[in-house]
Amino acid sequence: MDLEQIYSHFNGSLEEVDRIVCERSSFHTDIIPLVTEYIVKSGGKRFRPLLTILSAELCNITNNRHLKLAAAVEFIHTATLLHDDVIDESMMRRNKPTANNVWGNKAVILVGDYLFSRSFQLMVEDKSLDVLRVLSTASSIISEGEVMQLDEIGNFDLSYDKYIKIISAKTAELFAASCEISPLTADNIDNKLVSVMREIGLYLGIAFQIMDDVIDYSPSPKKGKNQGDDFLEGKVTLPLILLRDKLETPAKTKLYQIFADLDFTKESFAYVYTLIEKYNILEKSVTYAEEYINKARQKLESFPDSYAKEAFEEIFKFSLERNF
Amino acid sequence: MDLEQIYSHFNGSLEEVDRIVCERSSFHTDIIPLVTEYIVKSGGKRFRPLLTILSAELCNITNNRHLKLAAAVEFIHTATLLHDDVIDESMMRRNKPTANNVWGNKAVILVGDYLFSRSFQLMVEDKSLDVLRVLSTASSIISEGEVMQLDEIGNFDLSYDKYIKIISAKTAELFAASCEISPLTADNIDNKLVSVMREIGLYLGIAFQIMDDVIDYSPSPKKGKNQGDDFLEGKVTLPLILLRDKLETPAKTKLYQIFADLDFTKESFAYVYTLIEKYNILEKSVTYAEEYINKARQKLESFPDSYAKEAFEEIFKFSLERNF
Repeated sequence: MDLEQIYSHFNGSLEEVDRIVCERSSFHTDIIPLVTEYIVKSGGKRFRPLLTILSAELCNITNNRHLKLAAAVEFIHTATLLHDDVIDESMMRRNKPTANNVWGNKAVILVGDYLFSRSFQLMVEDKSLDVLRVLSTASSIISEGEVMQLDEIGNFDLSYDKYIKIISAKTAELFAASCEISPLTADNIDNKLVSVMREIGLYLGIAFQIMDDVIDYSPSPKKGKNQGDDFLEGKVTLPLILLRDKLETPAKTKLYQIFADLDFTKESFAYVYTLIEKYNILEKSVTYAEEYINKARQKLESFPDSYAKEAFEEIFKFSLERNF
Repeated sequence: MDLEQIYSHFNGSLEEVDRIVCERSSFHTDIIPLVTEYIVKSGGKRFRPLLTILSAELCNITNNRHLKLAAAVEFIHTATLLHDDVIDESMMRRNKPTANNVWGNKAVILVGDYLFSRSFQLMVEDKSLDVLRVLSTASSIISEGEVMQLDEIGNFDLSYDKYIKIISAKTAELFAASCEISPLTADNIDNKLVSVMREIGLYLGIAFQIMDDVIDYSPSPKKGKNQGDDFLEGKVTLPLILLRDKLETPAKTKLYQIFADLDFTKESFAYVYTLIEKYNILEKSVTYAEEYINKARQKLESFPDSYAKEAFEEIFKFSLERNF
């Protein structure tokens, strides 16, 4: 079993999610369906809807309510991406011009707001106050995480704990919610099951973001991204935290000086990267992701064998590989 | 009875709304409570929460659930204001620097998203799916209205009907929702009452926005705004629509030429304003607002006499005066 097989196994459900997403785009403006379709077709992994679908299968949920909720999650994720690209002034995503690059910041901020509201309308149609609670809480934690991250730009003293708190909020919280909402659609809600699914999503999400941050430092980063983007923005992530805690003077002093001078240039990055290589920082960072994946694996163990369980194991494996 | 007396009559309830708003600001970041407090204290009229409180009183709702919902409405309104100021690149609002001017666009986009999510958390706590439906629908209609408005920038051919559709969406929808949610908190929901309250809010909101658009053309516009701001942005509102439909060549041709050349300068505005004065366009525009206020008055007539009814009448009167 590989990731592609998992996607094709659930293709019917994923297409239904896409259909709901496109159907719920605006009827009164041209631009909202254009932007939505642009994003849906831009080859996003639809990873969060997949998690919702997989969680439903793992928890033996057969009523299909989760498909509408998976669309709601995708709306929240898309809204976040749109606003993120405006905030980061990104021009490219996955080798395509970003929506803000094509339609301008103004329209894209509003389309983000629109999709966000649409997501709550979908949830209201489903009528579960539990799901509404989980996803409204997740949304507020996500924006809070993004604000925290913005606050910490240029802070070379960022602690490991604060880093984990930030990535838990900005990334892992929506992974957790994506998994948690499926068992919440059961006729008889099993609260222990709900909390296990939440933990699986949370640990996977933390590992996923750690790997994202590692890949940012690797010589062949993700499509449409450049090596060292995070450093060049003054963003402190796990590799830099581990490097800082490893270094001694004079290298440590030099790094503090780079941050004091806001000297986030390609030359500074080249220097940082030699140190990252010298101390095997990326390999070390991956072990932190592995630790979180192991926590997720432990939670998965309690489930009986099934296709969904195997698929989760495959996703855990994949999340640690990701063309690094 | 004047507006100030109404505000002081409901001061206890309004303070409770402010308390909920401030209490629900973030605990994990410094900037979110700062921005929220800045906006709450910037002397906004808190007009929408007042409508919710007045509607509750008019409909004999005494359970106080509406206070939390009034805070939810204020969160949505504040989020909209924050994003609007980023989109319009506004530097001042009510004679104070805008939040984006003080904290930057990035933080302000995120704080808007945060407050928006918080508003849904407040609604979930209240547990009414009806209220959630009304406010999630209102939110999506608001952003759709803003997108429509952006789409129509520079379109001198904007029809009156489309103009009413845009202002109904971007402004009146939240007024309607503010009034509608109070009777939805009754133990036995009276659907006819809910729809009457919705109409009162909708008509008032349309009149309110028409007056806003009229005041934008007046020599003494609102605090922190300049005469002709809408025209200078290429925004077509009621006065310009009425002027266009009144004019004949060559003045009409000249105006079309200004729009074709995107010549939205102070000189062009001076020319437009002489025509606006010549044809008494502002007085004529006010009669459109009066028409909507009359519709709202008709809906109010069915209620027995009460302080709240009188207060609504006063608000209707005030909305047509607004230092024009």
